[in-house]
Amino acid sequence: MSVGHRVEYIALEGIPHVEPGDDLAGLIRQALAGMDLKLQRGDILVLAQKVVSKAEGRYVRLADVEPSVRARVLAESVGKDARFLEIVLSESEEVVKTRPNVVIAAHRLGFVMANAGIDQSNIEHRDGEERVLLLPEDPDGSARQLKASLDADGALELGIVINDSFGRPWRNGVVGVALGAAGIPSLLSQIGVADMFGRAMRVTEIAIADEISSAASLLMGQASAGLPVILVRGLKLSGPSSPALALARPKSQDMFR
Amino acid sequence: MSVGHRVEYIALEGIPHVEPGDDLAGLIRQALAGMDLKLQRGDILVLAQKVVSKAEGRYVRLADVEPSVRARVLAESVGKDARFLEIVLSESEEVVKTRPNVVIAAHRLGFVMANAGIDQSNIEHRDGEERVLLLPEDPDGSARQLKASLDADGALELGIVINDSFGRPWRNGVVGVALGAAGIPSLLSQIGVADMFGRAMRVTEIAIADEISSAASLLMGQASAGLPVILVRGLKLSGPSSPALALARPKSQDMFR
Repeated sequence: MSVGHRVEYIALEGIPHVEPGDDLAGLIRQALAGMDLKLQRGDILVLAQKVVSKAEGRYVRLADVEPSVRARVLAESVGKDARFLEIVLSESEEVVKTRPNVVIAAHRLGFVMANAGIDQSNIEHRDGEERVLLLPEDPDGSARQLKASLDADGALELGIVINDSFGRPWRNGVVGVALGAAGIPSLLSQIGVADMFGRAMRVTEIAIADEISSAASLLMGQASAGLPVILVRGLKLSGPSSPALALARPKSQDMFR
Repeated sequence: MSVGHRVEYIALEGIPHVEPGDDLAGLIRQALAGMDLKLQRGDILVLAQKVVSKAEGRYVRLADVEPSVRARVLAESVGKDARFLEIVLSESEEVVKTRPNVVIAAHRLGFVMANAGIDQSNIEHRDGEERVLLLPEDPDGSARQLKASLDADGALELGIVINDSFGRPWRNGVVGVALGAAGIPSLLSQIGVADMFGRAMRVTEIAIADEISSAASLLMGQASAGLPVILVRGLKLSGPSSPALALARPKSQDMFR
């Protein structure tokens, strides 16, 4: 049988519930061993943002939050908990758009998303306390750390992606997108053909890390009960590595802010 | 070795250059046979929009276009060919945003995209004539037809997706998205957990067809020299089928129009 160009996505089984301080690299090694899998050169691991945030202990207890006047005013206008919005605002650089029950904000990392990416769901109420889960402090840094743990000498050319699910303007439904990455070209410039008017060579930038995030998201299922780590094997990527931050369009270049 | 949850993407080799009137189902059957592959139950085929449009002969010669006053005015303001913009306008319901060299429009199908999805690149200049390639007339219908050809009695439960690459607000780079689909839940409602404030059960809608489109796009490469048909095997999807049109958010529900 002709082999052709094939890419395989494998959901790792046996990743336990992640607690603050857990060693994700160790949990991944154990899961791989349990499935008789060894990392191969060029493999990519996609991790759900939630497990990275949990391992990093990025919880905030609502009871500890004193909402500012700004958060209280916003809470009145959109009908959300003022303490929750205080956390959203403190994680954000800009509120992009609001509607009843919806706050779209630009996270300080540069990503525009609902509630600045702060999870309201799938968060356990520890000892009856409501708490929310922030994004990792530095998702690209988290990805680099994981790569350093799992591919210390770089021989595997391992790629790491940290994904999340975002809604989008114009289209229904959420899709997986990348918040952090290491060892892959998150944004790949591809020089195209001359355009039909011969004006210039067109350069298309492909959001590789977002496409990988979407593909992996299809196997993750619901994040609470789901499979939070996906192994991607066989994807041939060329081009210099770039962080997921390269995917965040600066406001000055954004037609829609 | 534990099998686990695995999904495989296989680029079909040997799909020739597609001409108007070509039988895509026949070309796919030949390519599969040449790779010793047989379609299996639950397989999904992802086709690049360009090959579907080409098979459907969706070319328009620029020389045949007489630009309207509206197209001429728009051409002045954005610096594009007035004949090209006449075609864009005639395919669109609404111009959403313009900037120099950029026209974002809502295609009559409901999808918002640059140039209403009309390809300016990778179009051969037949006999020295400039021509552009429109989207398929009815991409969901094209997908249903292909499914009917390749899975006449429905026994394979074959899925078909027609994908394209779109830019997006807020994030750099293009990603694969779905224009047409058949036999899969393009938009899947997933009932989530009760939200942290206990107000209501959250329903998350997942843009499954867009995620599949992005995943396949990673294997397609540049559309001109690339691999325009990808076989997806092992993806377990449950839920009622819905067309790609379900992904187009109506203007009345769009915060960003």
